[in-house]
Amino acid sequence: MRVLGVDPGLTRCGVGVVDGTPGRPLTMVGVGVIRTPAEEEIGPRLLRVEQGIEQWLDLHRPELVAVERVFAQHNVRTVMGTAQASAVAMLCATRRGIPVTLHTPSEVKAAVTGSGRADKAQVTAMVTRLLRLAEPPKPADAADALALAICHIWRGATTNRLAAAVATAKQSSPRSREYRR
Amino acid sequence: MRVLGVDPGLTRCGVGVVDGTPGRPLTMVGVGVIRTPAEEEIGPRLLRVEQGIEQWLDLHRPELVAVERVFAQHNVRTVMGTAQASAVAMLCATRRGIPVTLHTPSEVKAAVTGSGRADKAQVTAMVTRLLRLAEPPKPADAADALALAICHIWRGATTNRLAAAVATAKQSSPRSREYRR
Repeated sequence: MRVLGVDPGLTRCGVGVVDGTPGRPLTMVGVGVIRTPAEEEIGPRLLRVEQGIEQWLDLHRPELVAVERVFAQHNVRTVMGTAQASAVAMLCATRRGIPVTLHTPSEVKAAVTGSGRADKAQVTAMVTRLLRLAEPPKPADAADALALAICHIWRGATTNRLAAAVATAKQSSPRSREYRR
Repeated sequence: MRVLGVDPGLTRCGVGVVDGTPGRPLTMVGVGVIRTPAEEEIGPRLLRVEQGIEQWLDLHRPELVAVERVFAQHNVRTVMGTAQASAVAMLCATRRGIPVTLHTPSEVKAAVTGSGRADKAQVTAMVTRLLRLAEPPKPADAADALALAICHIWRGATTNRLAAAVATAKQSSPRSREYRR
Protein backbone atom coordinates (compact mmCIF):
# COMPACT_ATOMS: atom_id res chain seq x y z
CA MET A 1 0.00 0.00 0.00
CA ARG A 2 1.30 3.41 -0.96
CA VAL A 3 0.23 6.32 1.25
CA LEU A 4 0.75 10.05 0.86
CA GLY A 5 0.85 11.72 4.26
CA VAL A 6 -0.02 15.43 4.36
CA ASP A 7 0.84 17.66 7.30
CA PRO A 8 -1.29 20.60 6.22
CA GLY A 9 -0.18 24.22 6.43
CA LEU A 10 -0.41 27.27 4.24
CA THR A 11 3.16 28.47 4.73
CA ARG A 12 4.61 24.97 4.84
CA CYS A 13 2.64 21.88 3.85
CA GLY A 14 4.59 18.69 4.57
CA VAL A 15 4.20 15.75 2.19
CA GLY A 16 5.64 12.27 2.51
CA VAL A 17 5.04 9.05 0.61
CA VAL A 18 5.53 5.65 2.22
CA ASP A 19 5.13 2.15 0.82
CA GLY A 20 4.29 -0.65 3.21
CA THR A 21 1.89 -3.09 4.76
CA PRO A 22 1.30 -3.79 8.46
CA GLY A 23 4.00 -6.06 9.89
CA ARG A 24 6.44 -5.55 7.01
CA PRO A 25 9.36 -3.11 6.69
CA LEU A 26 8.37 0.32 5.40
CA THR A 27 9.94 2.21 2.50
CA MET A 28 10.13 5.96 2.07
CA VAL A 29 9.26 6.90 -1.51
CA GLY A 30 9.53 10.67 -1.22
CA VAL A 31 9.37 13.56 1.18
CA GLY A 32 9.05 17.31 0.71
CA VAL A 33 7.41 20.56 1.68
CA ILE A 34 5.08 22.69 -0.42
CA ARG A 35 5.73 26.30 0.54
CA THR A 36 3.72 29.40 -0.23
CA PRO A 37 4.88 32.99 0.32
CA ALA A 38 3.29 34.55 3.41
CA GLU A 39 3.05 37.92 1.66
CA GLU A 40 0.88 36.51 -1.11
CA GLU A 41 -2.94 36.60 -1.03
CA ILE A 42 -4.84 33.59 0.21
CA GLY A 43 -6.31 32.56 -3.18
CA PRO A 44 -2.96 32.23 -4.98
CA ARG A 45 -1.49 30.49 -1.92
CA LEU A 46 -4.24 27.87 -1.97
CA LEU A 47 -3.63 27.45 -5.68
CA ARG A 48 0.06 26.77 -5.03
CA VAL A 49 -0.88 24.16 -2.43
CA GLU A 50 -3.25 22.56 -4.94
CA GLN A 51 -0.62 22.50 -7.68
CA GLY A 52 1.93 21.05 -5.26
CA ILE A 53 -0.41 18.29 -4.06
CA GLU A 54 -1.41 17.50 -7.65
CA GLN A 55 2.25 17.14 -8.57
CA TRP A 56 2.82 14.72 -5.69
CA LEU A 57 -0.26 12.70 -6.67
CA ASP A 58 0.87 12.61 -10.30
CA LEU A 59 4.38 11.58 -9.42
CA HIS A 60 3.72 8.93 -6.78
CA ARG A 61 0.15 7.71 -7.45
CA PRO A 62 -0.70 6.93 -3.82
CA GLU A 63 -3.61 4.60 -3.09
CA LEU A 64 -4.53 6.56 0.01
CA VAL A 65 -4.02 10.03 1.39
CA ALA A 66 -3.64 10.52 5.15
CA VAL A 67 -4.21 14.07 6.37
CA GLU A 68 -3.72 15.42 9.86
CA ARG A 69 -7.03 16.19 11.50
CA VAL A 70 -7.18 19.87 12.36
CA PHE A 71 -8.85 21.07 15.52
CA ALA A 72 -10.21 24.55 16.05
CA GLN A 73 -8.79 24.54 19.58
CA HIS A 74 -5.22 24.61 18.31
CA ASN A 75 -3.16 27.75 17.73
CA VAL A 76 -5.81 30.25 16.67
CA ARG A 77 -3.39 32.27 14.57
CA THR A 78 -2.48 29.42 12.24
CA VAL A 79 -5.50 27.14 12.44
CA MET A 80 -7.42 28.77 9.60
CA GLY A 81 -4.56 28.32 7.13
CA THR A 82 -4.09 24.76 8.33
CA ALA A 83 -7.79 23.99 7.86
CA GLN A 84 -7.77 25.55 4.41
CA ALA A 85 -4.63 23.72 3.26
CA SER A 86 -6.10 20.45 4.53
CA ALA A 87 -9.28 21.14 2.57
CA VAL A 88 -7.23 21.53 -0.62
CA ALA A 89 -5.37 18.26 0.01
CA MET A 90 -8.62 16.37 0.70
CA LEU A 91 -10.23 17.89 -2.38
CA CYS A 92 -7.34 16.91 -4.67
CA ALA A 93 -7.42 13.31 -3.44
CA THR A 94 -11.20 12.99 -3.58
CA ARG A 95 -11.33 14.37 -7.12
CA ARG A 96 -9.16 11.44 -8.18
CA GLY A 97 -11.22 8.94 -6.22
CA ILE A 98 -8.38 8.39 -3.75
CA PRO A 99 -9.71 7.66 -0.24
CA VAL A 100 -8.75 10.15 2.46
CA THR A 101 -8.40 9.39 6.13
CA LEU A 102 -7.76 11.78 8.97
CA HIS A 103 -5.57 11.10 11.98
CA THR A 104 -5.13 13.30 15.02
CA PRO A 105 -1.62 14.39 16.04
CA SER A 106 -1.78 12.15 19.11
CA GLU A 107 -2.87 9.14 17.06
CA VAL A 108 0.14 9.73 14.82
CA LYS A 109 2.54 10.11 17.74
CA ALA A 110 1.14 7.03 19.44
CA ALA A 111 1.43 5.01 16.23
CA VAL A 112 5.10 5.76 15.62
CA THR A 113 6.47 6.23 19.17
CA GLY A 114 4.02 4.38 21.40
CA SER A 115 3.09 7.62 23.18
CA GLY A 116 0.46 10.14 22.15
CA ARG A 117 2.46 12.84 23.93
CA ALA A 118 5.84 12.25 22.26
CA ASP A 119 7.76 15.35 21.23
CA LYS A 120 8.87 16.28 17.72
CA ALA A 121 12.41 14.91 18.17
CA GLN A 122 11.04 11.53 19.25
CA VAL A 123 8.71 11.37 16.24
CA THR A 124 11.57 12.27 13.87
CA ALA A 125 13.85 9.67 15.49
CA MET A 126 11.23 6.93 15.10
CA VAL A 127 10.38 7.92 11.53
CA THR A 128 14.10 7.73 10.67
CA ARG A 129 14.38 4.30 12.30
CA LEU A 130 11.12 2.86 10.88
CA LEU A 131 11.99 3.94 7.36
CA ARG A 132 15.58 2.74 7.84
CA LEU A 133 17.01 6.08 6.72
CA ALA A 134 20.72 6.84 7.09
CA GLU A 135 19.82 10.21 8.59
CA PRO A 136 16.66 12.09 9.63
CA PRO A 137 14.37 12.95 6.71
CA LYS A 138 14.94 16.33 5.08
CA PRO A 139 13.34 18.81 5.20
CA ALA A 140 13.03 18.11 8.93
CA ASP A 141 9.49 19.41 9.27
CA ALA A 142 8.21 16.95 6.71
CA ALA A 143 8.88 14.10 9.15
CA ASP A 144 5.33 14.59 10.41
CA ALA A 145 3.97 13.87 6.95
CA LEU A 146 5.92 10.59 6.85
CA ALA A 147 4.68 9.79 10.37
CA LEU A 148 1.11 10.32 9.16
CA ALA A 149 1.64 7.92 6.27
CA ILE A 150 3.17 5.32 8.62
CA CYS A 151 0.35 5.79 11.11
CA HIS A 152 -2.14 5.22 8.34
CA ILE A 153 -0.48 2.03 7.12
CA TRP A 154 -0.39 0.61 10.63
CA ARG A 155 -3.73 1.76 11.94
CA GLY A 156 -5.59 1.55 8.70
CA ALA A 157 -5.82 -2.16 7.98
CA THR A 158 -9.55 -2.18 8.65
CA THR A 159 -10.36 1.50 8.19
CA ASN A 160 -8.75 1.59 4.76
CA ARG A 161 -10.80 -1.22 3.35
CA LEU A 162 -13.92 0.52 4.59
CA ALA A 163 -12.92 3.91 3.16
CA ALA A 164 -11.97 2.33 -0.16
CA ALA A 165 -15.32 0.55 -0.40
CA VAL A 166 -17.19 3.75 0.39
CA ALA A 167 -15.12 5.72 -2.13
CA THR A 168 -15.76 3.13 -4.83
CA ALA A 169 -19.47 3.16 -4.13
CA LYS A 170 -19.49 6.94 -4.33
CA GLN A 171 -17.34 7.17 -7.43
CA SER A 172 -19.79 4.95 -9.27
CA SER A 173 -22.40 7.72 -9.20
CA PRO A 174 -20.50 10.91 -8.61
CA ARG A 175 -22.94 13.30 -10.25
CA SER A 176 -26.21 11.74 -9.25
CA ARG A 177 -27.19 14.16 -6.49
CA GLU A 178 -24.63 16.84 -6.66
CA TYR A 179 -26.70 19.97 -6.55
CA ARG A 180 -29.42 20.48 -4.05
CA ARG A 181 -30.52 24.02 -3.91
CA MET B 1 -19.40 44.82 -12.28
CA ARG B 2 -20.70 41.30 -11.59
CA VAL B 3 -19.87 39.84 -8.19
CA LEU B 4 -20.44 36.35 -6.80
CA GLY B 5 -20.86 36.50 -3.02
CA VAL B 6 -20.11 33.32 -1.11
CA ASP B 7 -21.27 32.74 2.46
CA PRO B 8 -19.13 29.67 3.10
CA GLY B 9 -20.32 26.59 4.90
CA LEU B 10 -19.97 22.87 4.50
CA THR B 11 -23.61 21.98 5.18
CA ARG B 12 -24.99 25.07 3.50
CA CYS B 13 -22.87 27.35 1.32
CA GLY B 14 -24.80 30.45 0.25
CA VAL B 15 -24.14 31.91 -3.20
CA GLY B 16 -25.52 35.10 -4.72
CA VAL B 17 -24.69 37.03 -7.86
CA VAL B 18 -25.23 40.78 -8.11
CA ASP B 19 -24.62 43.21 -10.97
CA GLY B 20 -23.91 46.82 -10.15
CA THR B 21 -21.59 49.76 -9.75
CA PRO B 22 -21.31 52.13 -6.79
CA GLY B 23 -24.06 54.76 -6.85
CA ARG B 24 -26.27 52.89 -9.34
CA PRO B 25 -29.21 50.54 -8.71
CA LEU B 26 -28.19 46.94 -8.12
CA THR B 27 -29.55 43.85 -9.89
CA MET B 28 -29.81 40.35 -8.50
CA VAL B 29 -28.65 37.83 -11.10
CA GLY B 30 -29.03 34.66 -9.08
CA VAL B 31 -29.15 33.25 -5.57
CA GLY B 32 -28.88 29.75 -4.16
CA VAL B 33 -27.41 27.38 -1.62
CA ILE B 34 -24.95 24.56 -2.24
CA ARG B 35 -25.77 21.83 0.27
CA THR B 36 -23.76 18.78 1.25
CA PRO B 37 -25.05 15.87 3.34
CA ALA B 38 -23.75 16.01 6.91
CA GLU B 39 -23.44 12.22 7.02
CA GLU B 40 -21.01 12.16 4.12
CA GLU B 41 -17.23 12.20 4.54
CA ILE B 42 -15.37 15.47 4.35
CA GLY B 43 -13.59 14.79 1.02
CA PRO B 44 -16.77 14.15 -0.98
CA ARG B 45 -18.46 17.11 0.72
CA LEU B 46 -15.65 19.45 -0.34
CA LEU B 47 -15.93 18.03 -3.84
CA ARG B 48 -19.66 18.87 -3.91
CA VAL B 49 -18.88 22.42 -2.80
CA GLU B 50 -16.28 22.68 -5.56
CA GLN B 51 -18.67 21.38 -8.19
CA GLY B 52 -21.37 23.75 -6.99
CA ILE B 53 -19.08 26.80 -7.07
CA GLU B 54 -17.76 25.79 -10.49
CA GLN B 55 -21.32 25.61 -11.78
CA TRP B 56 -22.08 29.10 -10.48
CA LEU B 57 -18.89 30.46 -12.03
CA ASP B 58 -19.70 28.77 -15.35
CA LEU B 59 -23.26 30.04 -15.36
CA HIS B 60 -22.75 33.64 -14.27
CA ARG B 61 -19.11 34.46 -15.13
CA PRO B 62 -18.55 36.90 -12.25
CA GLU B 63 -15.66 39.37 -12.48
CA LEU B 64 -15.04 39.13 -8.76
CA VAL B 65 -15.73 36.73 -5.94
CA ALA B 66 -16.44 38.08 -2.45
CA VAL B 67 -16.07 35.55 0.36
CA GLU B 68 -16.89 36.00 4.02
CA ARG B 69 -13.74 36.19 6.09
CA VAL B 70 -13.77 33.36 8.62
CA PHE B 71 -12.41 33.85 12.11
CA ALA B 72 -11.18 31.08 14.36
CA GLN B 73 -12.87 32.76 17.32
CA HIS B 74 -16.34 32.00 15.95
CA ASN B 75 -18.41 28.93 16.75
CA VAL B 76 -15.73 26.28 17.24
CA ARG B 77 -18.03 23.46 16.15
CA THR B 78 -18.64 24.81 12.67
CA VAL B 79 -15.61 26.98 12.03
CA MET B 80 -13.49 24.23 10.47
CA GLY B 81 -16.11 23.39 7.86
CA THR B 82 -16.61 27.07 7.16
CA ALA B 83 -12.86 27.62 6.71
CA GLN B 84 -12.63 24.59 4.44
CA ALA B 85 -15.61 25.58 2.28
CA SER B 86 -14.19 29.10 1.96
CA ALA B 87 -10.85 27.62 0.84
CA VAL B 88 -12.64 25.73 -1.93
CA ALA B 89 -14.47 28.86 -3.10
CA MET B 90 -11.25 30.92 -3.13
CA LEU B 91 -9.43 28.14 -4.96
CA CYS B 92 -12.09 27.85 -7.68
CA ALA B 93 -12.03 31.60 -8.32
CA THR B 94 -8.24 31.90 -8.27
CA ARG B 95 -7.86 28.98 -10.68
CA ARG B 96 -9.86 31.02 -13.21
CA GLY B 97 -7.91 34.20 -12.51
CA ILE B 98 -10.92 35.82 -10.84
CA PRO B 99 -9.88 38.15 -8.00
CA VAL B 100 -11.12 37.23 -4.54
CA THR B 101 -11.75 39.65 -1.72
CA LEU B 102 -12.69 38.88 1.84
CA HIS B 103 -15.12 40.86 3.97
CA THR B 104 -15.88 40.37 7.65
CA PRO B 105 -19.48 39.83 8.76
CA SER B 106 -19.53 43.28 10.39
CA GLU B 107 -18.21 44.96 7.25
CA VAL B 108 -21.02 43.32 5.32
CA LYS B 109 -23.67 44.32 7.85
CA ALA B 110 -22.36 47.88 8.00
CA ALA B 111 -22.33 48.10 4.20
CA VAL B 112 -25.94 47.08 3.71
CA THR B 113 -27.63 48.32 6.91
CA GLY B 114 -25.32 51.06 8.18
CA SER B 115 -24.64 49.10 11.38
CA GLY B 116 -21.99 46.43 11.91
CA ARG B 117 -24.22 44.88 14.59
CA ALA B 118 -27.39 44.53 12.54
CA ASP B 119 -29.32 41.28 12.94
CA LYS B 120 -30.15 38.78 10.22
CA ALA B 121 -33.68 40.14 9.66
CA GLN B 122 -32.32 43.63 9.10
CA VAL B 123 -29.73 42.37 6.60
CA THR B 124 -32.40 40.42 4.71
CA ALA B 125 -34.73 43.43 4.69
CA MET B 126 -32.05 45.69 3.27
CA VAL B 127 -30.89 43.13 0.69
CA THR B 128 -34.52 42.82 -0.47
CA ARG B 129 -34.85 46.61 -0.72
CA LEU B 130 -31.46 47.27 -2.34
CA LEU B 131 -32.05 44.60 -4.98
CA ARG B 132 -35.64 45.83 -5.46
CA LEU B 133 -37.05 42.34 -4.95
CA ALA B 134 -40.78 41.80 -4.60
CA GLU B 135 -40.12 39.56 -1.60
CA PRO B 136 -37.10 38.46 0.49
CA PRO B 137 -34.60 36.36 -1.46
CA LYS B 138 -35.11 32.61 -1.31
CA PRO B 139 -33.58 30.53 0.12
CA ALA B 140 -33.56 32.91 3.07
CA ASP B 141 -30.11 31.99 4.30
CA ALA B 142 -28.54 32.95 0.98
CA ALA B 143 -29.36 36.61 1.69
CA ASP B 144 -25.94 36.85 3.33
CA ALA B 145 -24.26 35.85 0.08
CA LEU B 146 -26.12 38.65 -1.74
CA ALA B 147 -25.18 41.07 1.06
CA LEU B 148 -21.52 40.07 0.56
CA ALA B 149 -21.75 40.81 -3.16
CA ILE B 150 -23.41 44.18 -2.48
CA CYS B 151 -20.82 45.00 0.16
CA HIS B 152 -18.10 44.23 -2.31
CA ILE B 153 -19.58 46.42 -5.06
CA TRP B 154 -19.92 49.34 -2.66
CA ARG B 155 -16.72 49.00 -0.70
CA GLY B 156 -14.61 47.66 -3.47
CA ALA B 157 -14.21 50.61 -5.84
CA THR B 158 -10.54 51.01 -4.95
CA THR B 159 -9.79 47.58 -3.54
CA ASN B 160 -11.10 45.85 -6.65
CA ARG B 161 -8.87 47.70 -9.03
CA LEU B 162 -5.93 46.79 -6.83
CA ALA B 163 -6.88 43.11 -6.58
CA ALA B 164 -7.51 42.91 -10.33
CA ALA B 165 -4.12 44.44 -11.09
CA VAL B 166 -2.38 42.02 -8.73
CA ALA B 167 -4.26 39.07 -10.19
CA THR B 168 -3.36 40.09 -13.74
CA ALA B 169 0.29 40.48 -12.79
CA LYS B 170 0.24 37.03 -11.19
CA GLN B 171 -1.65 35.33 -14.01
CA SER B 172 1.00 36.48 -16.45
CA SER B 173 3.56 34.14 -14.89
CA PRO B 174 1.49 31.50 -13.06
CA ARG B 175 4.01 28.67 -13.13
CA SER B 176 7.21 30.56 -12.66
CA ARG B 177 7.85 29.83 -9.01
CA GLU B 178 5.23 27.34 -8.10
CA TYR B 179 7.17 24.75 -6.24
CA ARG B 180 9.62 25.60 -3.56
CA ARG B 181 10.53 22.58 -1.57
